[in-house]
Amino acid sequence: MRKAKRADSAKTPRDVQAVFDDIKATRKVADVNNFWRYLARDPALLKRTWEGVKEVMRPGELDVLTKEMLYLAVSITNGCGYCIASHTAGARKAGMTEAMFGELMGVVGMANETNRLANGYRVPIDPAFEK
Amino acid sequence: MRKAKRADSAKTPRDVQAVFDDIKATRKVADVNNFWRYLARDPALLKRTWEGVKEVMRPGELDVLTKEMLYLAVSITNGCGYCIASHTAGARKAGMTEAMFGELMGVVGMANETNRLANGYRVPIDPAFEK
Amino acid sequence: MRKAKRADSAKTPRDVQAVFDDIKATRKVADVNNFWRYLARDPALLKRTWEGVKEVMRPGELDVLTKEMLYLAVSITNGCGYCIASHTAGARKAGMTEAMFGELMGVVGMANETNRLANGYRVPIDPAFEK
Amino acid sequence: MRKAKRADSAKTPRDVQAVFDDIKATRKVADVNNFWRYLARDPALLKRTWEGVKEVMRPGELDVLTKEMLYLAVSITNGCGYCIASHTAGARKAGMTEAMFGELMGVVGMANETNRLANGYRVPIDPAFEK
Amino acid sequence: MRKAKRADSAKTPRDVQAVFDDIKATRKVADVNNFWRYLARDPALLKRTWEGVKEVMRPGELDVLTKEMLYLAVSITNGCGYCIASHTAGARKAGMTEAMFGELMGVVGMANETNRLANGYRVPIDPAFEK
Amino acid sequence: MRKAKRADSAKTPRDVQAVFDDIKATRKVADVNNFWRYLARDPALLKRTWEGVKEVMRPGELDVLTKEMLYLAVSITNGCGYCIASHTAGARKAGMTEAMFGELMGVVGMANETNRLANGYRVPIDPAFEK
Repeated sequence: MRKAKRADSAKTPRDVQAVFDDIKATRKVADVNNFWRYLARDPALLKRTWEGVKEVMRPGELDVLTKEMLYLAVSITNGCGYCIASHTAGARKAGMTEAMFGELMGVVGMANETNRLANGYRVPIDPAFEK
Repeated sequence: MRKAKRADSAKTPRDVQAVFDDIKATRKVADVNNFWRYLARDPALLKRTWEGVKEVMRPGELDVLTKEMLYLAVSITNGCGYCIASHTAGARKAGMTEAMFGELMGVVGMANETNRLANGYRVPIDPAFEK
Repeated sequence: MRKAKRADSAKTPRDVQAVFDDIKATRKVADVNNFWRYLARDPALLKRTWEGVKEVMRPGELDVLTKEMLYLAVSITNGCGYCIASHTAGARKAGMTEAMFGELMGVVGMANETNRLANGYRVPIDPAFEK
Repeated sequence: MRKAKRADSAKTPRDVQAVFDDIKATRKVADVNNFWRYLARDPALLKRTWEGVKEVMRPGELDVLTKEMLYLAVSITNGCGYCIASHTAGARKAGMTEAMFGELMGVVGMANETNRLANGYRVPIDPAFEK
Repeated sequence: MRKAKRADSAKTPRDVQAVFDDIKATRKVADVNNFWRYLARDPALLKRTWEGVKEVMRPGELDVLTKEMLYLAVSITNGCGYCIASHTAGARKAGMTEAMFGELMGVVGMANETNRLANGYRVPIDPAFEK
Repeated sequence: MRKAKRADSAKTPRDVQAVFDDIKATRKVADVNNFWRYLARDPALLKRTWEGVKEVMRPGELDVLTKEMLYLAVSITNGCGYCIASHTAGARKAGMTEAMFGELMGVVGMANETNRLANGYRVPIDPAFEK
């Protein structure tokens, strides 16, 4: 059965529980979402992935909203349904308004279009871009 | 010969020239880059593409730097060499520092990784994301 | 109706039936899965695809388990839901354990990440790799 | 200039040098390749990426050759030129023969084909694959 | 709720209604499909996208059937479920028979396969193709 | 050296030569292009790929020009440089004019854009498309 693939909370191994606890504390949420539950099937993968996500999504030179929108733009380009749903939610939580989302969609759509126009015409890179 | 595929400036048709002039005026640049010169092989495609790019890249709810970084994130994901070169230049011109670029790369890399992890484990979308 | 798109077994054309019989005999299964039933809408496509799959998946210098894992890694990268489901099943049948699947996911995720890092930094190929 | 984007060895920061030294010691090589030199522009990205690659490529339930071939299959699917060159070299070093490479190509090609056939016919997942 | 994301027809803004009316008149259909209803969340995106689609899909040097099949081939390659469903319907309406669809699938499958074979062997472009 | 990876004509194995001869006879060309020379490193892959390409590209319900344009649309979407160059040449040989190429580019660009808009808004498939 499909459900059996999620970690059963009654039997969560200690190393998995430690990651879950850190996710909940870092994000100030009551529970972890399905992505982390499925990754828990391989505790080393879960731990490495969470530590990577935690590090890259931390506010730095770019704020959290910008980072969430970049994550969403990549997920839309790749057509990952789960990731689009979760990062649309994440970007909204970080402050993305409906109008901002509309503009993001405009840029993502246009970039996917012009990427193929540049491919198709085999446009050589301008020397100015190499500096 | 490859060069013959670019519009020869001495013979630029009037409709193409009008678009080139608008690009130069809008972007305050002395000349248009190769992408526009190759698109000029089909004047209707050139005009429609420029008008689309001009509209989506105009500052709105998102500023120009954010839009350039979204464009770059999509181009990196698609592996379009020309677009990566031109939009890295565009983002730098709009204010992207080396440190910001490093953080963008971190997010783009991680998103491409977790997109596949979500695919591979066939993670069902959390009901909370559907609201 | 959707169902009508599958070949109705009572009316299976002889050339389609011959392919179905070969699939069942080769794989030692009681019935063919949906993929082959849908391809049967074009008997030439069905025959050519089955013969190609049969040839590439035959044990050779690489064993069946390795081939199934390569197939799965490509399917995860492309985000093909049907193919991920069917080749996860195929790889398990060929001996992929949960621990091996976790390691495969780690490699697939990391490759998708570093592919974009190499794109984004436009890393030139080392002369040593050209030998 | 393009070259200036590589870390100049005379001025390599201590944190970057530590990663370079670990790469050289782990892989028993005299120098690091271009990929790592370019990533060094962001020392945190360099460190995180190397630690991830080191962990996932370590022999475990899957041996190094299998892991290198999975990495190569993903890189070919994504069309990343640098990654194809470096992981073809990596897989050969780990024991991939010309005959094994030919079989890998056969599987990667066929998977990319059937992924689209499953998409195009919108094949529903067989209940048997959900168990 | 999901439904709330569609424009409620009782409250459709005037600019959105004008686009909907043009779609219905141009395509001679009683109602617009979901794609346009969702895009209506951003009226400028809706208008720009419709005008672009209307222009590129108009019969010209290529007829509507050829254009619909090209659209479908791209959508299958990208794995966009909605687009595959809508453009399969569109191509059928423009005259694509089951036999033509089978041949299209054959070409799309083979192109996706040989694209990776060319990537994997890093085949250099023949001078003859550069002329 | 790179060149050594091509089959040296003086030593071409008989099975490879038979495929080369069939390519030259079928296409009425004096020599085979680089793609086939690289595939010759694995004679079974060469033979299977050529037979598949020969079968799908044969005129049938779709003419050769339409098939070449579909092949090109997929290759542009995937960003395969070699394939774009060779199938642009192939489509031109089959009758694609500059104006037709411009329209093909318009459709390919727009399809890549709207594929992402449908992904990003997670548009549900209209019941009418399921019939």
